[in-house]
Amino acid sequence: MGPKVVIVGAVAAGPKAGSRLKRLDPSARVVMVDRDETISYGGCGIPYYVGGDVAEAEGLRSTSFHMIRDEAFFKGAKGIDVLAGWEAVAINRMARELELRELKTGRERRLAYDRLILATGASPVRPDIPGIGLEGVWPVADLHQAQGIKAAVSQGRVARAAVVGAGPTGLEMAEALADLWGVEVDIYETADRILPRFLDPEMARFAENHLREQEGIGLHLATPVEEILSGPEGRVRAVRAGDRERETDLVILAVGTRPQDSLARKAGLEVDEGGGIVVNEHLQTSDPEIYAAGDCVANRCLITGGRVRLASGSVANRQGRVAGTNAAAGRPRARFKGVVGSWIMKLFEVSAAGVGLTTERAREAGFDPVSALVVQADRAHFYPGQELMYLKLIADSKTRRVLGVQGFGPAGDALAARIDAVAAALPSQPTVEEISNLELAYAPPFSSAMDILNATANTVENVLEGRLESLSPEEFSRLLKEAKAGSEGGAVFLDVRGLANVRPYLESLADRGWRHLPQESLAERLDEVPRGKKLVLICNAGARSYEAQVTLKAAGFKDTVNLSGGVAAVKRWGEPIIPENEEG
Amino acid sequence: MGPKVVIVGAVAAGPKAGSRLKRLDPSARVVMVDRDETISYGGCGIPYYVGGDVAEAEGLRSTSFHMIRDEAFFKGAKGIDVLAGWEAVAINRMARELELRELKTGRERRLAYDRLILATGASPVRPDIPGIGLEGVWPVADLHQAQGIKAAVSQGRVARAAVVGAGPTGLEMAEALADLWGVEVDIYETADRILPRFLDPEMARFAENHLREQEGIGLHLATPVEEILSGPEGRVRAVRAGDRERETDLVILAVGTRPQDSLARKAGLEVDEGGGIVVNEHLQTSDPEIYAAGDCVANRCLITGGRVRLASGSVANRQGRVAGTNAAAGRPRARFKGVVGSWIMKLFEVSAAGVGLTTERAREAGFDPVSALVVQADRAHFYPGQELMYLKLIADSKTRRVLGVQGFGPAGDALAARIDAVAAALPSQPTVEEISNLELAYAPPFSSAMDILNATANTVENVLEGRLESLSPEEFSRLLKEAKAGSEGGAVFLDVRGLANVRPYLESLADRGWRHLPQESLAERLDEVPRGKKLVLICNAGARSYEAQVTLKAAGFKDTVNLSGGVAAVKRWGEPIIPENEEG
Repeated sequence: MGPKVVIVGAVAAGPKAGSRLKRLDPSARVVMVDRDETISYGGCGIPYYVGGDVAEAEGLRSTSFHMIRDEAFFKGAKGIDVLAGWEAVAINRMARELELRELKTGRERRLAYDRLILATGASPVRPDIPGIGLEGVWPVADLHQAQGIKAAVSQGRVARAAVVGAGPTGLEMAEALADLWGVEVDIYETADRILPRFLDPEMARFAENHLREQEGIGLHLATPVEEILSGPEGRVRAVRAGDRERETDLVILAVGTRPQDSLARKAGLEVDEGGGIVVNEHLQTSDPEIYAAGDCVANRCLITGGRVRLASGSVANRQGRVAGTNAAAGRPRARFKGVVGSWIMKLFEVSAAGVGLTTERAREAGFDPVSALVVQADRAHFYPGQELMYLKLIADSKTRRVLGVQGFGPAGDALAARIDAVAAALPSQPTVEEISNLELAYAPPFSSAMDILNATANTVENVLEGRLESLSPEEFSRLLKEAKAGSEGGAVFLDVRGLANVRPYLESLADRGWRHLPQESLAERLDEVPRGKKLVLICNAGARSYEAQVTLKAAGFKDTVNLSGGVAAVKRWGEPIIPENEEG
Repeated sequence: MGPKVVIVGAVAAGPKAGSRLKRLDPSARVVMVDRDETISYGGCGIPYYVGGDVAEAEGLRSTSFHMIRDEAFFKGAKGIDVLAGWEAVAINRMARELELRELKTGRERRLAYDRLILATGASPVRPDIPGIGLEGVWPVADLHQAQGIKAAVSQGRVARAAVVGAGPTGLEMAEALADLWGVEVDIYETADRILPRFLDPEMARFAENHLREQEGIGLHLATPVEEILSGPEGRVRAVRAGDRERETDLVILAVGTRPQDSLARKAGLEVDEGGGIVVNEHLQTSDPEIYAAGDCVANRCLITGGRVRLASGSVANRQGRVAGTNAAAGRPRARFKGVVGSWIMKLFEVSAAGVGLTTERAREAGFDPVSALVVQADRAHFYPGQELMYLKLIADSKTRRVLGVQGFGPAGDALAARIDAVAAALPSQPTVEEISNLELAYAPPFSSAMDILNATANTVENVLEGRLESLSPEEFSRLLKEAKAGSEGGAVFLDVRGLANVRPYLESLADRGWRHLPQESLAERLDEVPRGKKLVLICNAGARSYEAQVTLKAAGFKDTVNLSGGVAAVKRWGEPIIPENEEG
């Protein structure tokens, strides 16, 4: 007989670990335990089930060949015994026994193990808000809750919904409710932007503008929910936030998750101070016969070397496989070295994605981040259907190491291609030069000869070399606002595009210092450039204005700044350059 | 005054090198020379111009902000002098002079240089076919030829066209002619498959079937064109190949390109025996004041360490930038370490892509390649709109290094994401395990929790470990053909899917050894499995049949093979499993 292996948790990492283990050692006796009676489902698919892309909850529990992954499936197809509805209460490491209790009956039992795999997942953080227990307030942590939400919505009981938290789950749920069901959605977020752990401020703002203006989502940033208010019969009636009450029929709680590490902690296994079970690169816990995989793990960050928590069905699956391999062998064999934190999400008609550190997190980790934002077509600029992609690359100024990249644009798969390339390179700690030279597959229907990813790395290099001094869309908007009509002392906004582009800006903003000199005649018309003033250089996307900056610097103009991402970025930033009452 | 820099070649690498150089050192005096009077165009866009996606030839010569990149543009916007219509005849390295001749007038002149950049490109191989000089026979090497082809087609003079060569250019031209213009296209290829340097046979065949069956392209493989036949007035009338004549109104020559290295060779610079100028990682030739960039270079292959020739507008642009950087500095500074050979192409409604070595090229380079073909949804299998992607990963059995990947599927951007990730990892010589653990951005609209790329690496690992013995679609089709009706001694085709899938196969093929045992009940029904016979294990995509193989091996069945990619791969392979007259 093979080893006795017990797995705690049967959603993603657990089933993968068990299945892999049985394939490697069919003689192993595997028991998988879960509190829930519903096991092995694609939790990441919950928003798509609620939003109607996946018609039935069974869709999230099915294999690609349409079998429901229930207890009978695991028994027959995988040779795994499942104890569903049983909670793991304690690990007796000396005796190598797991203590279990059946939730329905309170019955207890013990399971002996040779190896134990912890795949206990993460649990949603319950925010400390009065009224959180009212009917109609839902976390999004399991399939039962998803079914509850969908039932309420599909029965027409929800006209307005409040989402607490603008992380990935909150935003995906907002889309699910608004897009198919036409629910009026308000999102409340304590931070000053959406996806605060994932996006830099200007990238977040591009997405925020899309959500507000194109999709009609109410976004309340820096606005914590203070209270959930009760209507008749203990049902939610309204949400109070920022000293205002807004009626609502449903509240979704999506303020993040926390690794479920209490079982490990009680058993004396090493747990990270920020939460999560500590494992080595073979996914062994501090007890070498106990493995951990999935959302319950404190992962090694391959960029900072520190530990990060990460809830991802994809990481869970890959870790499950590694834990299963090693538990089958009974010795360290397969490795999972760590994570780089790649992510992507669909936001209605656009997508946002990234990998690695944001500027803020890079700074927290002790790096000195510099970055560049590039706006460029997502395929050859002459190819029909091309759309603008927005890409920001962050690097450390001392080592020139690339720390992260973030992107935004309508073509999600094309955005994934750039993010995935950086994700694949990040474990080997690439320099900016290596991303400049990254050899993405090229043909006009898919990319540019100088792809936006290469171009963004080139731009960061120019920043590092001190050749490019740039101005963010936010700084630009502030500067333009400060430019009083007729103020002669202020900055000059030098627009280097063609006249057709520039004309409306000249008509409206000449008295605030907007000037025109096309880049291609700049070198010959240097005497027309005002001396002794700050020159803000402007074009559509930031490339031609960079050429202008080079020319002006060589001619001795010292105070020049290049508008990063050009007019395209300012438009996404959402402050009209030409005052709105003058347009049209 | 800055250095005098002369650039030979003004299509892709040359203009990029010059522009970069002038940005770094505006005091440099840069002259760019080209034989052609039309310069700086996106040659890779030619098929899209001919096919109508790009309406005017100017589209390929324009910047993203709609300026034509002509001599005036380079003078004004870039500070570069252009000598168009001048051929570089010789390099006098002692005197540091370039000898030029104007093609129209025969006039000669010399240009002194401090540094020289060779960006002479590649020229189309002219196949040795009688009749190649006839009117209506076109190579696709420059914009003039593209305009000639488009004129003929758009004036309705072309009902049938013959394309010589089934490489990327030939296939893209075939699409251009067939798709918009409705031209009947025949492609002739000497090799036994399309894209022979890029795709393994079964991957090529998937694409061939699409071209033949869905798009009506005539594909004549292993069929060299023997003669191009003349009609009245010296115009092409027909093509003779494989002892058959086919009428045609137009012949496109697309049998590959050869680096233009004769100028370098004459000047005594080191040139690779297979063609192409030899450079170090700073793109310096054997004369450190002479750089080379683009299609004229013999590139270092980062996988084999050997030299490869590669015609790519993307590599040309990135090399141009590196050469420009170093020529500006006058010393080695920026690096271009080599290439991994990533590529992608649109083929009507599907795309094919890859990076690295094919099985054949891996063997030539001295590796011992093993591989796996995986067929899986290109996003979560429960997400609407998902389609099957076909991915093949090749690794070296001794070192477990990944050598290459090839893919095929309808979602080109999504395919690019997988190829680009491997392309980004390849320079650091990843093992199969590292691709198994690659952290692609995950969300159900874009990928699976266990992405097809991870799954393909997992499958290669199983092959390497001897756990998975697989049968290609080709071998399967042969075996099934050999299975005579009623022959009791042959292989057993054990279909482990659900009965609904299997029923038509059982009805038609039971007497050839087709049997049904669903995977999930296999372990309990082992006594029903025939002993002493070769067992061919079959499911939809190859995963469930692998589970069956594991179970059968553990039960002592020695001769089992798993149908790689399952029924999905055989369908793409194009041999009907159920004889066609029995279907329907």
